[in-house]
Amino acid sequence: MKRICLIATGGTIACVPTENGLFPELTAAELVKLVGCESDEVQISCTDLFSMDSSNIQPEEWCIIAEAIRDKASSCDGIVLTHGTDTMAYTASMLSFMLRGVPVPVVLTGAQYPAVYPNSDGRRNLMDAVIAASSLPGGVYICFGGSVMLGCRSVKTRTTSLNAFESINYPYIATITDGKCVLLHKPKLSYGFSFSASIEPRVALVKIYPGMSPELLDSLKDIGMKGVVVEGFGLGGMHNFRRDHTESIKKLMEAGIPVVLTSQCLYEQSTPDVYEVSRALKDAGILSAHDMTTEAAITKLMWVLGRAHDIESVRRIMETDIAGELTEA
Amino acid sequence: MKRICLIATGGTIACVPTENGLFPELTAAELVKLVGCESDEVQISCTDLFSMDSSNIQPEEWCIIAEAIRDKASSCDGIVLTHGTDTMAYTASMLSFMLRGVPVPVVLTGAQYPAVYPNSDGRRNLMDAVIAASSLPGGVYICFGGSVMLGCRSVKTRTTSLNAFESINYPYIATITDGKCVLLHKPKLSYGFSFSASIEPRVALVKIYPGMSPELLDSLKDIGMKGVVVEGFGLGGMHNFRRDHTESIKKLMEAGIPVVLTSQCLYEQSTPDVYEVSRALKDAGILSAHDMTTEAAITKLMWVLGRAHDIESVRRIMETDIAGELTEA
Repeated sequence: MKRICLIATGGTIACVPTENGLFPELTAAELVKLVGCESDEVQISCTDLFSMDSSNIQPEEWCIIAEAIRDKASSCDGIVLTHGTDTMAYTASMLSFMLRGVPVPVVLTGAQYPAVYPNSDGRRNLMDAVIAASSLPGGVYICFGGSVMLGCRSVKTRTTSLNAFESINYPYIATITDGKCVLLHKPKLSYGFSFSASIEPRVALVKIYPGMSPELLDSLKDIGMKGVVVEGFGLGGMHNFRRDHTESIKKLMEAGIPVVLTSQCLYEQSTPDVYEVSRALKDAGILSAHDMTTEAAITKLMWVLGRAHDIESVRRIMETDIAGELTEA
Repeated sequence: MKRICLIATGGTIACVPTENGLFPELTAAELVKLVGCESDEVQISCTDLFSMDSSNIQPEEWCIIAEAIRDKASSCDGIVLTHGTDTMAYTASMLSFMLRGVPVPVVLTGAQYPAVYPNSDGRRNLMDAVIAASSLPGGVYICFGGSVMLGCRSVKTRTTSLNAFESINYPYIATITDGKCVLLHKPKLSYGFSFSASIEPRVALVKIYPGMSPELLDSLKDIGMKGVVVEGFGLGGMHNFRRDHTESIKKLMEAGIPVVLTSQCLYEQSTPDVYEVSRALKDAGILSAHDMTTEAAITKLMWVLGRAHDIESVRRIMETDIAGELTEA
């Protein structure tokens, strides 16, 4: 008998139609009853944390979720977290850092269509997530559309299809087939469990585009940002004349604000090493996100800034693999 | 005999190694000679506009490129534009608007590795682009890795692989196989040719993330932005409490600054119609990018703001298909 803890936070899976559009109303217990995911082999205990559209999930909710998981982790075999899809990849990334080395599987799932709809993906997803949480080693995962991926490598890439998430720059962990969890890749996550939910949310994300005014970067210091993730072009390029982004980034770094370079390309790594335009960024000491997703880079920077303050300490943690989010060189 | 005009702008395809990293130095004529793409059937005339890493291509370069294409279009059967890959999708999108209804094919290409390298993709890509420019109907395309896609539907999704570009929410136009252009989908682009390179570059792009300070939106008016594209979560969600992005967007719209909603998901459309959190955005009059790429949405907004100023006129053009970039409802 596996003891699974279901923690509900809202999301489309829990939605019912209202006058103003879909709104999450079903409780964890209502979901369990609707889906019928309890059995002789699986006992489910329910917790309702809040009931939100995940577009509204923010750092404050991440702390509440992480604390709830920490409190449950020692008394169950696995945790399923129902969550809206919109920010699920961000939450899964942040939980990977806050709950580093969590000894039980923490499996996030949700749905593209409300579980109360006849053909909803929500019932299968919740059933699959319970199976994954009964089978996998400790870690934070997303289970969606029959696939299980590492939470900190997941990105929502489709707004409406049932295979909404992809595993980026990392193998899929498992597939759920005929009610069984088939392991495809065992992640090497050999860390002791350390809980740390102290984060710095004042981090900015800037996606570069041709013609972008450097003032967009220059203004970040004035509004109190403590760190910046920049999505450059390709391997990490940006303008260095006429509208000089490099100069703006140098100024941020000189003011003690770490700037992390990632790519706006969905797949493959970034690096400031290859082209003349980005060498100047490297000389300025820009941090590299390597092959991290943007979701992992921004949540990791918030988490790192909760414990490190000078740029070199931030760099050391940012460029070290914490939870499987980064392929170290 | 087809008369093809090759216009070179630099990019990796033209790069040679220097002390400070790769730098674009080959001319159009040197590329033609290196690749050997002239034949009894194809005569190529060369133009060197500039030689830049495409990370530095900006609205000013778009105008120079568009004018050069306009000047050549009447005296050749097709145009090949060599260009760096980093901003190629942005340039292809903008040229689709500036050169709406261009009567000859304009085919952008480039390379992930310098054409002077032994196993570079640049030689095949240039050869393929010449074939595409000798075969396709009028329009702006990207030819890369053996595939031809509509310029305003292209996104660079891979930083290093040879199939660097994908056609998003639109069928691939053609494939180049055994030296022949095999048409897969004939785009319905039945517009008369109208050249208009007047654009408003002071447009901001904001990718929303959990915990984003609304000040990032509030500051855009102060630094003189005339329009904003917002990449929301999923179908287009964002925070509407604690950090209230909806309120900030309402303020921008009330100040006469149009805000266009798109999705940070790579695939499929955005819409503010479905969820309670985004209904408020719809009530505030936010414009929808529907299934446009971010590259198309931001360049189109710059282009629209070059000819329309009040929000309703901007909305009318933004939500109309101009060059194949938008699937109208």
